[in-house]
Amino acid sequence: MNKKAQTAITPTREENYPEWYQQVVKAADLAENSPVRGCMVIKPYGYAIWENMQRILDDMFKATGHVNAYFPLLIPLSFLQKEATHVEGFAKECAVVTHHRLEADPQTGLLKPAGELDEPYIIRPTSETIIGHAYSRWVQSYRDLPILINQWANVMRWEMRTRLFLRTSEFLWQEGHTAHATKEEAIEETLQMLQVYEDFSHHSVALPVIKGLKTPDETFPGAVDTYTIEAMMQDRKALQAGTSHFLGQNFAKASEIIFLDKDGERRHAWTTSWGMTTRMIGALIMQHGDDDGLIVPPKLAPKHIVIIPVSKNDEERAKILATCERLKKEWQAIPYAQGFVRVDIDKRDLGGGEKGWDHIKKGVPIRVEVGPREMAQAQVFVGRRDHGHRDKKVIAEATFKEQITGILDEIQNTIFERAVQHLKSNIKRIDSLEEFEAFFTAPGKNKNSQDDDQGIFGGFAYCHWNLAAMGHSLLKKLKVSPRCIPLPNDRLGIGFKEPGSCLFTGKPSEQRVIFARSY
Amino acid sequence: MNKKAQTAITPTREENYPEWYQQVVKAADLAENSPVRGCMVIKPYGYAIWENMQRILDDMFKATGHVNAYFPLLIPLSFLQKEATHVEGFAKECAVVTHHRLEADPQTGLLKPAGELDEPYIIRPTSETIIGHAYSRWVQSYRDLPILINQWANVMRWEMRTRLFLRTSEFLWQEGHTAHATKEEAIEETLQMLQVYEDFSHHSVALPVIKGLKTPDETFPGAVDTYTIEAMMQDRKALQAGTSHFLGQNFAKASEIIFLDKDGERRHAWTTSWGMTTRMIGALIMQHGDDDGLIVPPKLAPKHIVIIPVSKNDEERAKILATCERLKKEWQAIPYAQGFVRVDIDKRDLGGGEKGWDHIKKGVPIRVEVGPREMAQAQVFVGRRDHGHRDKKVIAEATFKEQITGILDEIQNTIFERAVQHLKSNIKRIDSLEEFEAFFTAPGKNKNSQDDDQGIFGGFAYCHWNLAAMGHSLLKKLKVSPRCIPLPNDRLGIGFKEPGSCLFTGKPSEQRVIFARSY
Repeated sequence: MNKKAQTAITPTREENYPEWYQQVVKAADLAENSPVRGCMVIKPYGYAIWENMQRILDDMFKATGHVNAYFPLLIPLSFLQKEATHVEGFAKECAVVTHHRLEADPQTGLLKPAGELDEPYIIRPTSETIIGHAYSRWVQSYRDLPILINQWANVMRWEMRTRLFLRTSEFLWQEGHTAHATKEEAIEETLQMLQVYEDFSHHSVALPVIKGLKTPDETFPGAVDTYTIEAMMQDRKALQAGTSHFLGQNFAKASEIIFLDKDGERRHAWTTSWGMTTRMIGALIMQHGDDDGLIVPPKLAPKHIVIIPVSKNDEERAKILATCERLKKEWQAIPYAQGFVRVDIDKRDLGGGEKGWDHIKKGVPIRVEVGPREMAQAQVFVGRRDHGHRDKKVIAEATFKEQITGILDEIQNTIFERAVQHLKSNIKRIDSLEEFEAFFTAPGKNKNSQDDDQGIFGGFAYCHWNLAAMGHSLLKKLKVSPRCIPLPNDRLGIGFKEPGSCLFTGKPSEQRVIFARSY
Repeated sequence: MNKKAQTAITPTREENYPEWYQQVVKAADLAENSPVRGCMVIKPYGYAIWENMQRILDDMFKATGHVNAYFPLLIPLSFLQKEATHVEGFAKECAVVTHHRLEADPQTGLLKPAGELDEPYIIRPTSETIIGHAYSRWVQSYRDLPILINQWANVMRWEMRTRLFLRTSEFLWQEGHTAHATKEEAIEETLQMLQVYEDFSHHSVALPVIKGLKTPDETFPGAVDTYTIEAMMQDRKALQAGTSHFLGQNFAKASEIIFLDKDGERRHAWTTSWGMTTRMIGALIMQHGDDDGLIVPPKLAPKHIVIIPVSKNDEERAKILATCERLKKEWQAIPYAQGFVRVDIDKRDLGGGEKGWDHIKKGVPIRVEVGPREMAQAQVFVGRRDHGHRDKKVIAEATFKEQITGILDEIQNTIFERAVQHLKSNIKRIDSLEEFEAFFTAPGKNKNSQDDDQGIFGGFAYCHWNLAAMGHSLLKKLKVSPRCIPLPNDRLGIGFKEPGSCLFTGKPSEQRVIFARSY
């Protein structure tokens, strides 16, 4: 720990939130930039969190009748042209494969591209078109529907300004692609997967989200309706944590997914797609992290408990290590969530303090120190990541063992409730443009300055809105956008019909919409 | 079933083995070609087998101390040039990314590549160079070693002649990449992972393999030693099912992975890499399939039991379905392997015979028919995929329930032992060139013909060999290559030191080597 700063992470969130984020990613050893422009290396600890997310989501997808499959990484250029809106949204920045060989330049001896392709390929930015092509072959009759497929894959969108997990050129995700015989069934699927995403966010990531419909300017290119879950980070900016699209018959028409219906008519299928990405790790960090580093929700933690043996000499060390091994064995036999309690012993040749801080920065839910005194009295010295770093307690071994899953559940609940309070207290009904501007202007910020403020201000403005407000100059100036038209939400008291006049245009509004700066 | 042929698959293995393979892939609905040259679509049933392989292998990797991570899909062109031998082997055919944008041509309106990159990227054909670059940053001291990382990923090697699962431009795999402080430790790791691959092949895929060292001409480009597991398909051709490479310090030197050793000296690390791919699904098909289709080893089967309700009218149907649901619930609570027995009810609106053949072609281990008679007498009508399709037995429900895991184990053993016998009986010690040529010449084949024979002939020739035999004209003519220098193998009686003279050159040989045609 940096003793001067009194916190393990410098700068603190208050001082510079974006830089704090980068430092947490580094201190927790989650990921790093790579020599490939905009692409990250996901390090083992970060990837272990992703694996836990994958496992839980995959089980949820299968429980709702989906199966996994795998489609090609590359998409023929001509496929992109089939859905006009889709091209507009995606074709602009992507990795283009134009050659299939390398040859040594006879002059320099250096390798250069050779074997030019007749038709270039792009690396998938998303797979609607290539999967649609397959479905058009697979679907003949209504009996072939629904198709309920998910794919775990890497995708690529060439990004100029990147940030680890939040915006990278390559990222990992899952993309669900389903085809249905009726509009109603496709809409039901779209909303079902939105619900799966909310459940996952709430119960596993401890991330409160607002379910809602995107306004037309924020809708997925080619979709009829895009549903989203929007979370609020600690700097009060919005983060879109997952989307579920009702694609209507747009892609079915572009890809010719046609089936013979029960009544003998040939009809286009109705399709959906839905995705969640490694961005969720960024959301987890920014929702729960504090000035000492990461806090991992127990449901997703690669390690639930780290045991730190504390000893002064070799003889003591061997005995204490044996005790630690015994405790590890006992504790990891305790069922928790879908598996068992995950326990690790930190045997590294480092001081106890240094080890402790390491696990605090990595957000391990429970730290247990075992020294000669604890060993002698069958006790353990327990620290919790949701408590202060000095707030550690001596507990009898047997008592602690009984409490483990309870403590994990408590931590999971605590950080979720904390996040809910943060979200609730930063949603504000706003009915004047002056108040709107003040809300989204950093304290002390020169209104005419173009400087990007790094501080914590603003929140979710809940305002009346009409489509005509799209692209309003004040929104551009404040870098604020409509995040979603929320679905009814009793806990937050938002998402209900409420006639009014658009804040920006004065035109009629049926209900309020969430506005925010966003990631 | 094609009644004329008396088999569900046409042609049979004897008639045309390569075509039989394609037909099994199709009939079992495992995969298909895509509009992207050389890339396949892995369909849900094929992907489910891959997921089971992944789960088991991943557990084995973790049990041996490895963790997963993720590295970029793209590799800067300059990275490839760092290891000279590696370039030779890999640079030739790969997908090259040269642009990062698409623009509409003002004339035609069609999209074309734009935004040319200063340095092209290639899509990873394998990741030694990009991972080596990361390790060079991560490794400073001997305390940072070993690094034991695995990656699950897609890779791409531009292939001109492709075959589903066996050789495709894009495929899925895992690639382990480890770095160690000493040569001994790296060699130990290389051999440990070879053992993991053998264990996985034997116990999960029921695929007998021969562990061995590749001859220099077959060694991975850039490796010091390549170890392999070689299997024999039913057409007696060899299939390399996994490799483990001892890379020496070659890649550590190319990537500058340097550490400060205990004695204060700066040294290059010793690295290994090891991989297994979706090709294993091809091996599974060709090892176990028969003229009625696929046979999936129970350890990897997406479904262990399919229940087929047989009824004549609606009233009967409802009762029988209820019974099936009850049986499913009971059976899927039975532990098997790492999980539980996987049971499915085939409720499709098709005839019982058609359903039965469908599951035979898909290689489901156990088929259970439940009709009015069975229901009335608390019996089930059971067919096993390792028995003939007519060889079905009436068994009391309670008795069958107790037998389920036993039957699954029996099928797993039966197909493994059958494969072992096939392998054993087709390894032949050969000491004359005439015999060698006859062994690898199809019966009835015109010796001067260039036609590729589609039949079943040859096997593993076990012959004395010297490095000087590399590229011998007879080997080229017969399309035969050295598959490996086998490690000692008691069961097969091969892999032991045995001085002799090379069959091709007469030069000294220390032990016999396996020669075969191969995939």
